[in-house]
Amino acid sequence: MTLSADLTFTPPVIAPIADAALQSRLQHKIDHKTKPAGALGRLEGLALQLGLIQRSETIALQQPQMVVFAADHGVTAEGVSAFPQAVTVQMVANMLAGGAAINVFARQHGFALQVVDAGVAADLPAHPQLQPRKVAWGTRNVCVEPAMSSDEARAALTAGMQVVQALPGNVVALGEMGIGNTSAAALLLARLAGVSLDDATGRGTGLDDQQLMRKRGVLARALARHAGATGPLQALAALGGFEIAMMTGAMLQAAADRRVVLVDGFIAGAAALVAHALVPQVKDYMVFCHRSDECGHGALLAHLKAEPLLALDLRLGEGSGALLAWPLVQSAAGFLNEMASFETAGVSGRQEG
Amino acid sequence: MTLSADLTFTPPVIAPIADAALQSRLQHKIDHKTKPAGALGRLEGLALQLGLIQRSETIALQQPQMVVFAADHGVTAEGVSAFPQAVTVQMVANMLAGGAAINVFARQHGFALQVVDAGVAADLPAHPQLQPRKVAWGTRNVCVEPAMSSDEARAALTAGMQVVQALPGNVVALGEMGIGNTSAAALLLARLAGVSLDDATGRGTGLDDQQLMRKRGVLARALARHAGATGPLQALAALGGFEIAMMTGAMLQAAADRRVVLVDGFIAGAAALVAHALVPQVKDYMVFCHRSDECGHGALLAHLKAEPLLALDLRLGEGSGALLAWPLVQSAAGFLNEMASFETAGVSGRQEG
Repeated sequence: MTLSADLTFTPPVIAPIADAALQSRLQHKIDHKTKPAGALGRLEGLALQLGLIQRSETIALQQPQMVVFAADHGVTAEGVSAFPQAVTVQMVANMLAGGAAINVFARQHGFALQVVDAGVAADLPAHPQLQPRKVAWGTRNVCVEPAMSSDEARAALTAGMQVVQALPGNVVALGEMGIGNTSAAALLLARLAGVSLDDATGRGTGLDDQQLMRKRGVLARALARHAGATGPLQALAALGGFEIAMMTGAMLQAAADRRVVLVDGFIAGAAALVAHALVPQVKDYMVFCHRSDECGHGALLAHLKAEPLLALDLRLGEGSGALLAWPLVQSAAGFLNEMASFETAGVSGRQEG
Repeated sequence: MTLSADLTFTPPVIAPIADAALQSRLQHKIDHKTKPAGALGRLEGLALQLGLIQRSETIALQQPQMVVFAADHGVTAEGVSAFPQAVTVQMVANMLAGGAAINVFARQHGFALQVVDAGVAADLPAHPQLQPRKVAWGTRNVCVEPAMSSDEARAALTAGMQVVQALPGNVVALGEMGIGNTSAAALLLARLAGVSLDDATGRGTGLDDQQLMRKRGVLARALARHAGATGPLQALAALGGFEIAMMTGAMLQAAADRRVVLVDGFIAGAAALVAHALVPQVKDYMVFCHRSDECGHGALLAHLKAEPLLALDLRLGEGSGALLAWPLVQSAAGFLNEMASFETAGVSGRQEG
């Protein structure tokens, strides 16, 4: 199979959040809270972003949703992961049983959790928290042929949009599970951001030095094989994964709905990269939650000019970093909504120099 | 007044948390959770620390307490702050009315909040959340004489211990409010860690370049005046503040009680510096919550070999950074307590290379 040139996909319309008048009112409100100007640091910019997303001087974060997209990757046949492919389906079962890290953090923070079978290479038994949207039993081996066909890529993007359309609330966190997916993310980073494979390729779930060297070689072959897949859609189909494609669609739809999008680590970042290449203003709705320890994520964030909230050397995926950062988003909303102003509290301002 | 050489203070006994057998069991538990080894990054070391503090493989964080120590500083007469001294008492009133940032974050995270009058330069009306433990109406001007007498220093340290002794629960977050207290913290950092005043002195609540230069000059005079106050107790009395001294006592007592101590930013860090100089093992119980944007905090953390959880350009104090980091402490406990292991979840481990 070769990738047909006919891949088309019409992303949803996403309005930029810019609104000079509202921004001015929000900044005034932030600056008159009982604190030195700027003293809440990154939370202040976050509060401003939330206000612009919600078109309001008061933030209401409602029914936050965690969606984990799971899929397998044909490239695992090349020995690019420290864990066997079977772990994808095993970890999906673990999530549905409530035992994964993402379950712990979702319970802690009151997120509803759904798992989407985007393309796991196994039949999955029905479960109330599992959405069956399998595009195929894993992608194809990117060293041999495109990871997915045009139809599959379009189907995955559309499924991601549909998943979000059905969600309540105005906050969506997106995560993933898929043995081999740091390879797909590294390939997208190399292709769409021009980052070298040396800088884009990391140890994933725990490769040693020799395995890492092999992974780089595999990815170099894959990248060369699909040298013609340069646009974001073509790169996504040739090099990506079903979970990445669905997250891309989900991010675009969430932004079109004016939801707050919590972006997790390297793999979710690769989806953000594709979404941003398709519709730059999608980034207005994204909160970049953490800087992963996985090699490549720093370069990815730099390309997107994104400054994440946390840097805790995480490299787990699942959406774990997104949920760990969530309380900071709530704190940003909380200070904007609840703190007293200098005027109402009777607190003196700065003295004249 | 000159500082008498008779300042003695017997800190409580603090046991180191080291326990090789327990550490090995905890590490085994952490490593067998359903995630790649080390994939939860900083949370893994935090879980280990919590387990060692609590002498258990299961963490129980109970009735977390936020205590804000408020005091005034005689050095404000030298024009070292962008805000007038009256703001200390105004902000105490704001906290007691529930309108400050620390109130918002305490409500968000379920912390009981108390404010301690450690030495505010005003009479404070009684309030159920206010503990009257005023040592004096502010410290003296450190450019002219020691900030406090030996008796005052001892009284403040003891009061801090007593405040913690009366608290329920096993988690204490310590914060402060005090116009001028970045000056006291910078002096302690310079004296106890050998950091230059250029590196230790920052803009506090918002000094401009000229005011910052003046502040450095004031602090240089103060440091020279008290050149003989080299030990931690002598430095604390000569250069410190009542809120810093009480936090020092509170940290020592909390560690002696085997409580988890959440350390906020630059001012709380200065108290940690003094406490650590008195009893090094106090650090075992400390969770360093964030790296402040205030100049000097990075050097302070480096001196203590402490790696904070957050770096959000905060420079507010009050304990705000401690509470913002709290959910991460809960997450560390949560994954240790609740995540499935590879064995119980039926997830395959790493494949042999």
